[in-house]
Amino acid sequence: MRAAIITIGDELLIGQTIDTNSAWIGAELSKAGFDVYRITSVHDRREDIIYALNEAAGKTDVVLITGGLGPTSDDITKQTLCEFFNTHLVINAEVLRMIEEMMTQRSFPMNENNRRQAEVPESCRILKNAVGTAPGMWFEKEGTIYISMPGVPHEMKYLMTELVLPELNKRFTSQTIIHRNIMTYGTFEAKLAEILTTFESGLPENIKLAYLPASGVIKLRLTGTGSDYNSLSNLINEQVGKLYKTIPEFIYGEDEESLEMVIGKLLKSNKKTVSTAESCTGGEIAHLLTSIPGSSAYYKGSIIAYANSVKTQLLGIQEYTIEKQGAVSEGTVKEMAIGARKLFITDYAVATSGIAGPDGGTEIKPVGTVWIAVASENEVICEKRVFGNDRITNIKRFSLAAMNLLRKQIINHSPSLLDTHQKK
Amino acid sequence: MRAAIITIGDELLIGQTIDTNSAWIGAELSKAGFDVYRITSVHDRREDIIYALNEAAGKTDVVLITGGLGPTSDDITKQTLCEFFNTHLVINAEVLRMIEEMMTQRSFPMNENNRRQAEVPESCRILKNAVGTAPGMWFEKEGTIYISMPGVPHEMKYLMTELVLPELNKRFTSQTIIHRNIMTYGTFEAKLAEILTTFESGLPENIKLAYLPASGVIKLRLTGTGSDYNSLSNLINEQVGKLYKTIPEFIYGEDEESLEMVIGKLLKSNKKTVSTAESCTGGEIAHLLTSIPGSSAYYKGSIIAYANSVKTQLLGIQEYTIEKQGAVSEGTVKEMAIGARKLFITDYAVATSGIAGPDGGTEIKPVGTVWIAVASENEVICEKRVFGNDRITNIKRFSLAAMNLLRKQIINHSPSLLDTHQKK
Repeated sequence: MRAAIITIGDELLIGQTIDTNSAWIGAELSKAGFDVYRITSVHDRREDIIYALNEAAGKTDVVLITGGLGPTSDDITKQTLCEFFNTHLVINAEVLRMIEEMMTQRSFPMNENNRRQAEVPESCRILKNAVGTAPGMWFEKEGTIYISMPGVPHEMKYLMTELVLPELNKRFTSQTIIHRNIMTYGTFEAKLAEILTTFESGLPENIKLAYLPASGVIKLRLTGTGSDYNSLSNLINEQVGKLYKTIPEFIYGEDEESLEMVIGKLLKSNKKTVSTAESCTGGEIAHLLTSIPGSSAYYKGSIIAYANSVKTQLLGIQEYTIEKQGAVSEGTVKEMAIGARKLFITDYAVATSGIAGPDGGTEIKPVGTVWIAVASENEVICEKRVFGNDRITNIKRFSLAAMNLLRKQIINHSPSLLDTHQKK
Repeated sequence: MRAAIITIGDELLIGQTIDTNSAWIGAELSKAGFDVYRITSVHDRREDIIYALNEAAGKTDVVLITGGLGPTSDDITKQTLCEFFNTHLVINAEVLRMIEEMMTQRSFPMNENNRRQAEVPESCRILKNAVGTAPGMWFEKEGTIYISMPGVPHEMKYLMTELVLPELNKRFTSQTIIHRNIMTYGTFEAKLAEILTTFESGLPENIKLAYLPASGVIKLRLTGTGSDYNSLSNLINEQVGKLYKTIPEFIYGEDEESLEMVIGKLLKSNKKTVSTAESCTGGEIAHLLTSIPGSSAYYKGSIIAYANSVKTQLLGIQEYTIEKQGAVSEGTVKEMAIGARKLFITDYAVATSGIAGPDGGTEIKPVGTVWIAVASENEVICEKRVFGNDRITNIKRFSLAAMNLLRKQIINHSPSLLDTHQKK
């Protein structure tokens, strides 16, 4: 079963609005077993809309259309649909009544624009919109279903969830599609692909692997297609199991989990606390850790030590460590972690010291160099990493590297957590 | 001048990734005077990519393509472009050298997949990618320019900004279009539109005003079209002057300036320093301030005081202040700011204490409540704000409110800075 999505609106083409509707519809249709083969965004222009409709006609079972149904004169989707389906606009009494009710409820007077929203193409079936004034419209022509919905995300989602998806599910007995996402950190896409060559070539024909890198993290997506849900699910689980065995050092979670989510779970289930001492990352690690609801249960605080004087006075770093090794060094970052752990009285402390750039690099310590350390009760572990030249990217990468070191150390201290986590 | 955008990747069609690249490219091309008439997203599938290319061929001056350039086997854009342009892949020595350098810098060994990234279609011109391993590619065929770029947003943005947009601007002489962006903070879109009714109706016909709200900040964009650059520029400057007179309390900068950039400039030109004491914002203010290159000149450090014990022990807040008024209170946040200013020996200190949510709210102090304070030599100013229910949005809004209070206080202390800033 094939589907196409057409989103209509000038704001999409000039980049004022990011098209989130397509992603949402794409995800829902794909869960329902449709292959969304194309998303097209066009202006509120008659010829562009007609072209996009003609293009989809005959090539697909369902066309989902959003946008251009507002009451103002720049919205022309309804008139254009009339032309495409060779029909004309008529006032729909029931829609008119719904709009009148809605306006009364909100104590707004009806105006000409509202009344115009009750005009619908005569040949369509109305999809009642309980959360807005523009109804959805269902057309069929030469074996293809066309569904037009408002572009306002919550109205579109209402119509999709309540009316469109249930009906599509009834009409099309579909193939089952299952997606599983495995989150990895710690290597490059190219390297990961090399390690997974054998795994990939051993995959059953109906399971596909995709690499989705996003700011330092690589998501591995397994997509399976089949007729029976249970056997497909078992088959995918088997492959996921193989993945865990092949690259245990890189997998940190599943689905859309971030490192900070996983760290939060690990600390909570282990009843441990953490603090941070950040130099080059300037609060990014603290920000990521505290972005998780409930993080105050395990996160105590941070010293952001941008100035060296802060490092010595607040974190208790010995002046000769900074003098001898420099602020970006193994010695300094270790003392930072130890200092933060003492100061905040936490089980763990994470520290970073590096050169985010664009200035401040030297031959021996180029821009992109970072030292990270994790202090715990009886030890301090430490790593040096070198990334690129872009300040914002570096701050993000330094932070991920530090959080991953923390994650590994928590797991080292109670390996049973790993099993629980992976068997969820 | 017409342009089309094609984004390639299974993740876009199944809704795992929202296509933000198209919006960004659309905005940039539209600023450059192009009519982006269509955005198409297709799978990593040969026939779908070819179809989208054929569709754009001849109908447009420029086709911008992103995605499908990764080193793994699911990425097939390069091979497909070879087919479309009737050419074949060859190793590009310079690209290979750049990749090798990048890998050496990061202490990763080269592998077969990395080497494959140095393979490019013979007939294209290479756009060197200084921030990633996949180069951009520039093709021309029958009067249309095709530009293929990686889908990783920061790599695409680098190539667009550094190489593609400058060259497109040179090649296409267009009607003069001038955009001016005025950055505002402190009010709602609907309210701003109400205040600006008279201003808007008095605009010359060839100048348009758009409201572009984005996470707490509203960008006002004036777009002028005309034939003569100088007279158009004068006309727009006149309108910008009117805007400054109408809403001086809301304008904080121009173009894409963020509050943290403006604060950096103000502190630098005034030779002042700042520190922070964050509770509910958990490092976000520090992160924003230190995201600016060279911020170590004026930013000294922060205490992130998530636990109350940190507030009393490190920031010297009196225990009875917290007991009597609570951690989220005028008294506490003022003492936090004073404490941070002393501890870090800075001219200014900013403090926040609030309830980001989703839990922790009460009837009197609901989720979304924040107290912010700015301490300087002779005074501490303080504000209470109430925002919404979403944790991530609250953290961002709290941080902006605090930074704006800091900005206003710096300007209060040396109003001459404001003039310099606005006359730039």
